[in-house]
Amino acid sequence: MKTHLDCIPCFARQALEAGRRISPDPACHERILRDVLRWAAEIDMDQPPPVLGQRLHRRLREIVGLADPYREVKEAQNRLASSVLAGLEADLGTAADPLDRALRLAIAGNVIDLGVDGDVTEAAVREAVRRALEEPVAGDLEGFRKRVAGALSILYLADNAGEIVFDRALIERLPAGRVIVAVRGGPVINDATVADARAAGLEGLAEIVDNGSDAPATILGDCSPAFLRRYAEADLVLAKGQGNFESLGDERREIFFLFKVKCPVIARHAGHPVGTHVLMRSQARP
Amino acid sequence: MKTHLDCIPCFARQALEAGRRISPDPACHERILRDVLRWAAEIDMDQPPPVLGQRLHRRLREIVGLADPYREVKEAQNRLASSVLAGLEADLGTAADPLDRALRLAIAGNVIDLGVDGDVTEAAVREAVRRALEEPVAGDLEGFRKRVAGALSILYLADNAGEIVFDRALIERLPAGRVIVAVRGGPVINDATVADARAAGLEGLAEIVDNGSDAPATILGDCSPAFLRRYAEADLVLAKGQGNFESLGDERREIFFLFKVKCPVIARHAGHPVGTHVLMRSQARP
Repeated sequence: MKTHLDCIPCFARQALEAGRRISPDPACHERILRDVLRWAAEIDMDQPPPVLGQRLHRRLREIVGLADPYREVKEAQNRLASSVLAGLEADLGTAADPLDRALRLAIAGNVIDLGVDGDVTEAAVREAVRRALEEPVAGDLEGFRKRVAGALSILYLADNAGEIVFDRALIERLPAGRVIVAVRGGPVINDATVADARAAGLEGLAEIVDNGSDAPATILGDCSPAFLRRYAEADLVLAKGQGNFESLGDERREIFFLFKVKCPVIARHAGHPVGTHVLMRSQARP
Repeated sequence: MKTHLDCIPCFARQALEAGRRISPDPACHERILRDVLRWAAEIDMDQPPPVLGQRLHRRLREIVGLADPYREVKEAQNRLASSVLAGLEADLGTAADPLDRALRLAIAGNVIDLGVDGDVTEAAVREAVRRALEEPVAGDLEGFRKRVAGALSILYLADNAGEIVFDRALIERLPAGRVIVAVRGGPVINDATVADARAAGLEGLAEIVDNGSDAPATILGDCSPAFLRRYAEADLVLAKGQGNFESLGDERREIFFLFKVKCPVIARHAGHPVGTHVLMRSQARP
């Protein structure tokens, strides 16, 4: 999708929040805000919003001189998610429809997103789980089930740290030996990288690849040839989170997007109100 | 007060809302947003926030080619306020403490502010009146009462159209023949100008002057010499609304600020939570 005018003020706010999260220095906050305003003033609105996010977080890492300012936050989120998930796994094994239940947990994990909500507590994660298990999921679960059964290779595009722990519950219910989990190619906000996929216990369950890009989404033009080959060859692509929906929503292949709608612009674009849990099947267009 | 970093994303949002309010053309919305982003990227943060507001609204008037794009909105707000106030005036005459009650109505009028809330309905105004009459006013009412009694000249700095109708209730309870009401020198958003002071029925009750400036506040450096003389000579200055608090809060004379706290930055600066109705007495500093 294109960047919407309403994304810009929101993005300026996010830049300020991100600066404050990784540095106590007000000069740093002002610097990143002014940089973002300059870029936003000249932005190509035909690009998806995560392009600006990629630029922001590159610049933030440069300003604070850290390759991965969110490393500790990500580790804490992985631990938090593991602790919450541990209490749910027995339950999952005996569920009437384990795939449906695991899918709901994977959506619940999507609440762990510093891009939208700066602080995530254990109570918030437990509440997200409770709601995800109770509320309807808008979308085509039966279509997804059929496509899973027929797919020889499933490319699972992960989103954030913490969230990726919940993804494991879903990946365990997909056909063994057929899943490739793709993470970001470099640190960006709290997005999951290879280290997080390992921390989530995905090794042995799925092949882990990185997409070669440090965008907080899957911007194909910025991904590695190795990743693009996986993307082209996969029978089924499942993309987690709003960022992946923003960057891949207009692509010319079938993709299942699994996320919680978190902002009014996405709500209008997706056709579901803010807060909706969706499993959205994009149309494969010729 | 200085412009705070948090004012900038909020300001970008306001620019977009203002553009949408006065033009249906998306190209206009994009143009004003990009202009504001460019200015904000280079802004002198030592200036008060209304300096950026002045620039935004000058540019908007230029883009749409209208000298006063909010003229009809202001007239509607004056009518709305007159209709609500008419039902309250009998009550006011028999109040135990008419000055206190009139002061509360003047604060209630401050809810009519397109700068913060795009759409104001009659129900919202009635609710604002109900709350203003019930809730405590933080500040020094007794000090104000004393200063009113001893003042030979009272300079009343008005804020918005609509609101200025409610101001009349207060001005009628100030000593007759001693009040000068100052309005903006030119149209800016829905701020009151001389036409609104007349529509509010202030002629005959008070001397009406304009401040010579089209800022949505009282930026002294931008005001006319005639206004500055009134400002210097007044025994008592009463300033309505957040904008006047932003531009005059650090001035070296005693001023009573009367407003509803509408944003977190002002809340921190004023020391009262968002939503508080305040009559704040600034310190006269040598």
